[in-house]
Amino acid sequence: MKLYDGGRAPNPRRVRVFLAEKGIEMPTEQVDLGALAQKSEAFTAVNPLQRVPALVLDDGTVLTESIAICRYFELLHPEPSLFGRAPKEVAVIEMWQRRIELHLLFPVSHVFRNGHPAMAAMEVPQVPEWAEANKPRVLDFLRLLDRELQGRPFIAGDSFSVADITGLVSVDFMKPAKLAVPDELTNVKRWHADVSARPSAKA
Amino acid sequence: MKLYDGGRAPNPRRVRVFLAEKGIEMPTEQVDLGALAQKSEAFTAVNPLQRVPALVLDDGTVLTESIAICRYFELLHPEPSLFGRAPKEVAVIEMWQRRIELHLLFPVSHVFRNGHPAMAAMEVPQVPEWAEANKPRVLDFLRLLDRELQGRPFIAGDSFSVADITGLVSVDFMKPAKLAVPDELTNVKRWHADVSARPSAKA
Repeated sequence: MKLYDGGRAPNPRRVRVFLAEKGIEMPTEQVDLGALAQKSEAFTAVNPLQRVPALVLDDGTVLTESIAICRYFELLHPEPSLFGRAPKEVAVIEMWQRRIELHLLFPVSHVFRNGHPAMAAMEVPQVPEWAEANKPRVLDFLRLLDRELQGRPFIAGDSFSVADITGLVSVDFMKPAKLAVPDELTNVKRWHADVSARPSAKA
Repeated sequence: MKLYDGGRAPNPRRVRVFLAEKGIEMPTEQVDLGALAQKSEAFTAVNPLQRVPALVLDDGTVLTESIAICRYFELLHPEPSLFGRAPKEVAVIEMWQRRIELHLLFPVSHVFRNGHPAMAAMEVPQVPEWAEANKPRVLDFLRLLDRELQGRPFIAGDSFSVADITGLVSVDFMKPAKLAVPDELTNVKRWHADVSARPSAKA
């Protein structure tokens, strides 16, 4: 197996943090997103959608999409469980993983990609008005998340899960998007400090 | 259990088609999206994100997010399998389910929500330039999908899966977004005719 990785971008980092939590080491190849290497002919042959990460299996099958790659590793290495075990737990984790993606990671990404000058070559056309429209959505969702985190240590319940990995990566991605967690959201701040202190956060 | 459903909107339909494929019948309550009933106090207490579908379990747990709800039913009723069984199959189905969402359903949704006058009360602010930016993305992805479907009957392989359900709903959602599958994409047309002919498509 080989993992095509992509430096500081949020999706490759999700997979690295997931692998670190599982204690899995993997041969990787860096794709230089700064040089738009994901759009090269060589990488387009790996993933026609020109995105990282991508995992090439020993039989040549290419898996893309961070969460599909993570779930594949979860099935091969079930411990520690990061997607849940019993049906209700699995569904609640998936619900929160998706809520975090749809209402935090993607809006932050829209702000970054449509608002940051460095993304002009990757996001064509940039629509600055769409970046602006997403800023209040990020803050609205963080307020909702703060209320949820008042009653529990992790995003989907009492245990660390893949939803926390998406959450960590999303909040850290706010910095290049020039967004910040408001100080009064103390539960989000506490949760972010906790997940950032795990060794996997360095991945 | 009770399912909060939402008429013609694509996400509630995903769950209905999934349940029809499984042969599961479920008590449902319609949430009138045309009257913005998803933003009512009563429904906000069910899902603070004010979106349908939502599934209330007998213990009071609320599951939202179409795919989390579908996976919950998959775990309770494994046959027929719609998320796959072996790790690689599960991962390939999830990869395609997400590719269809991210590169077809969401761009179509951006076109509809930011471009259609009827959505002015739901998408605030509407950004028509963002709707325009997403139109070529829809067509680019459909061309890629057409090449993929040359070699297989269904989106993720030889068997109908949840990726086909997301695909069906996405293509049907193109109509209110005033988009059409180009006639030369004969593999997409053939696939769409096949999945539309299944009894579940009427759900």
